[in-house]
Amino acid sequence: MADSWVNPAKRTGTDTEAEAGATGIGADLHLELSGPGGRRAALIRALREAIRSGRLAPGARLPPYRSLAADLGVARNTVADAYAELAAEGWLTPRQGSGTRVAERAEPLKARTRGPKKAPPRARGPRHDLRQGTPDASSFPRAAWLASYRRALQRAPSEAFGPGDPAGRIELREALTEYLARARGVRTKPGRIVICSGFAHALRLLFPTVLRGPLAVESYGLPFHRGLLAAAGVRTVPLALDEDGAQVGDLGGERAVLLTPAHQFPTGGPLHPSRRAAVIDWARARGGVVLEDDYDGEFRYDRKPVGAVQGLDPERVVHIGSVSKSLSPALRLGWMVLPERYVDEVLAAKGEREAWASALDQLTLADFVESGSYDRHVRRMRQRYRRRRDRLVEALAAHAPHVGVTGIAAGLHAVLRLPPGSEQSAVKAAVSQGLALDGLAEFRHPEATMAAPDGLVVGYATPSEHAYGAALEALCAALPPP
Amino acid sequence: MADSWVNPAKRTGTDTEAEAGATGIGADLHLELSGPGGRRAALIRALREAIRSGRLAPGARLPPYRSLAADLGVARNTVADAYAELAAEGWLTPRQGSGTRVAERAEPLKARTRGPKKAPPRARGPRHDLRQGTPDASSFPRAAWLASYRRALQRAPSEAFGPGDPAGRIELREALTEYLARARGVRTKPGRIVICSGFAHALRLLFPTVLRGPLAVESYGLPFHRGLLAAAGVRTVPLALDEDGAQVGDLGGERAVLLTPAHQFPTGGPLHPSRRAAVIDWARARGGVVLEDDYDGEFRYDRKPVGAVQGLDPERVVHIGSVSKSLSPALRLGWMVLPERYVDEVLAAKGEREAWASALDQLTLADFVESGSYDRHVRRMRQRYRRRRDRLVEALAAHAPHVGVTGIAAGLHAVLRLPPGSEQSAVKAAVSQGLALDGLAEFRHPEATMAAPDGLVVGYATPSEHAYGAALEALCAALPPP
Repeated sequence: MADSWVNPAKRTGTDTEAEAGATGIGADLHLELSGPGGRRAALIRALREAIRSGRLAPGARLPPYRSLAADLGVARNTVADAYAELAAEGWLTPRQGSGTRVAERAEPLKARTRGPKKAPPRARGPRHDLRQGTPDASSFPRAAWLASYRRALQRAPSEAFGPGDPAGRIELREALTEYLARARGVRTKPGRIVICSGFAHALRLLFPTVLRGPLAVESYGLPFHRGLLAAAGVRTVPLALDEDGAQVGDLGGERAVLLTPAHQFPTGGPLHPSRRAAVIDWARARGGVVLEDDYDGEFRYDRKPVGAVQGLDPERVVHIGSVSKSLSPALRLGWMVLPERYVDEVLAAKGEREAWASALDQLTLADFVESGSYDRHVRRMRQRYRRRRDRLVEALAAHAPHVGVTGIAAGLHAVLRLPPGSEQSAVKAAVSQGLALDGLAEFRHPEATMAAPDGLVVGYATPSEHAYGAALEALCAALPPP
Repeated sequence: MADSWVNPAKRTGTDTEAEAGATGIGADLHLELSGPGGRRAALIRALREAIRSGRLAPGARLPPYRSLAADLGVARNTVADAYAELAAEGWLTPRQGSGTRVAERAEPLKARTRGPKKAPPRARGPRHDLRQGTPDASSFPRAAWLASYRRALQRAPSEAFGPGDPAGRIELREALTEYLARARGVRTKPGRIVICSGFAHALRLLFPTVLRGPLAVESYGLPFHRGLLAAAGVRTVPLALDEDGAQVGDLGGERAVLLTPAHQFPTGGPLHPSRRAAVIDWARARGGVVLEDDYDGEFRYDRKPVGAVQGLDPERVVHIGSVSKSLSPALRLGWMVLPERYVDEVLAAKGEREAWASALDQLTLADFVESGSYDRHVRRMRQRYRRRRDRLVEALAAHAPHVGVTGIAAGLHAVLRLPPGSEQSAVKAAVSQGLALDGLAEFRHPEATMAAPDGLVVGYATPSEHAYGAALEALCAALPPP
């Protein structure tokens, strides 16, 4: 029946099938034809009701006559008559070339209950944002990423569009093997990499299925991670920090320790080489495992490279990274580099098929890394963030020379050391300046016993380039007087 | 130091910063310069070791002199000398125009332990694949999807590259509100939609945080879903099925029921209108909730539309859909349409920021739906799958007229009814034909008490177009004799 209404002029193309409906503008429309009168009357009623109730929104395009006729099993003229009737009533607007649409003034009854059309996303509050954790969203390399996406889509084998391997695409795992070796000193092979949605997903995959608590953590870290671990039933035990990083000599009966060796989060120093060696010794002696959160390892501004602890002993370290700081947290792509003995268990925790990371995004990232675009982007951003860091240091030297700044050799944030007891009032002063940022206390483990210095964590990557200067001014205005 | 090596000719462009390193081909390289001799000797040793150990793979591109010099804090000539020395030793190959690369014959010591370069993904076994659950991967609309991706990337506001709203992008929730109303009879608004990675993710978000067991399920369904629920501590209670679908009159003390109303999975019928009304009545009377798995609702081949049960009472139904059948399971995009009272809890379960679905993919799907590409693709695939279904029915009529075929009014699979006791041997015969498919018993709830018919579940969407004929032949050869 559908075929009788096909316009032969539109049947050209490469498809060998009789895909009649596919050639026109085919809008899917769910209608029930029932009630008194003929099919035409029933269709008019159904369409009118759909518009009135808001199911068909103002401006929505209706299916072509022949498509709807084929779907409903009615004659084409029945649909044409129904559309004409509703146009006459003012519900529909026939438009030359673009088909019939719901009239703009056909205001649905429940307009109030539908969200605003094209509303901006929820207002996010502060005028200035120096919260840590986010790269400059305005610097996403759109053109280069799109070029990689295009190449990935063109080259992808058909199976890439089917169910995915839970380990992740082999193309990406190979690209990461080479990149992580080269840039981070990670020693691995594709078979030991598992792709995930980011660091939090890695934690969820590891705990409590593959690893169990208690887990030693640094006394300062992301509350979000501690909360996630607590929800998985994992007890976390704080390790004190000093100028050499986490005091791993205090490790006791824990079976695992979570560290940020390249750049302690948030206090900012690297783990001292002797501590790196010590934590590996501990893991070997106790059968323990080190979780290495390499969240911003690419962004190092001085010239002392700080490689991954994983390189010291790939069988004792789970190395976890993502593109959330280097590219964007909006992509939801990360990786775990695993000791061999955990691979099967992590894959089992992930499930039989890839349920999280898009295969196309994985192929795009593989191309982005292999084509050199990732290196170029990281290098560009490193220069940019270094300049922002320098501006921060200069602004403080000029306007608040009594405030020390630490943790500036790497990363996307710095810590300002404040006089004892002044942190809370400084955060409040910032709020009154329209400036969002966090005090150090936000990140402290509730059971930490080490001294609690006062400080502010300043994420200098977060604002867009043009907004950074004003954010710095607000910051300086919020700092306590000497 | 970096700046002194910038080639001014390359400093054109829109960047206003001194992004010296960003203009060249910048490969990130982690090297530690230590040991006896000068910087040059240390650099040569470090590079040689990186190549020998495989950290720098054959063919890998090295950073330009000036970039590496800036990173390491050495003179440009030191790097140039080191490269020249290693090229003389055969470790490196200078290439005109594309920089210095690791020589192809510089075979790393541990070559064996690295995965094969560009290996094809794991072999997936059978010659013919009629397993249910996957759309034709070769039909993914690459050109139209790429066009939507390009538009989405170009139009995306900067904030789209920052941390995401756990509800999902507003653009996608608005597009789905309009689409689901029109095509599936779903009544909702953007504020009640939460984006997720697919049906399994939806279950994980709901159980056990928002909803608790026991959960009534259909006696036949996906073992994967039952396993996932069991892992979340949710007991499932089987409901018997008959020709009208799930016998919802048997619902007892359960607080929730999971149904596939549009097309029972896998037996194939729609839930009868009286049962649809009855399950809503049950939910209202008992304070229960209906989970509607609308996994292939778009693919209906006869002309009786089967709208979503959700339309009967949006406050009593959680409607769950995804693009896994309509587009590809590789995209990992789905949605939940929620009663108002669950929205906050589901968002809390998702976390403070979007941790799963890529914002760019969400914006792409929004454009794909709003531009009409989604409708066109679904319509094209519906025609294609309908033809496949017809070919299946014809092949059976010609070669196995004693085998009944059911569940063919919709979806991507059919059920072949076999004589009692013949299912296992038919599955075995299929395997010996190199044909993968599942018997009905695979899908039966272990505690189901209803009769257990013998049958085969034939996923006719899975093969590519050219492979379908051979798969049908193998199927007919595997069926039991009359």
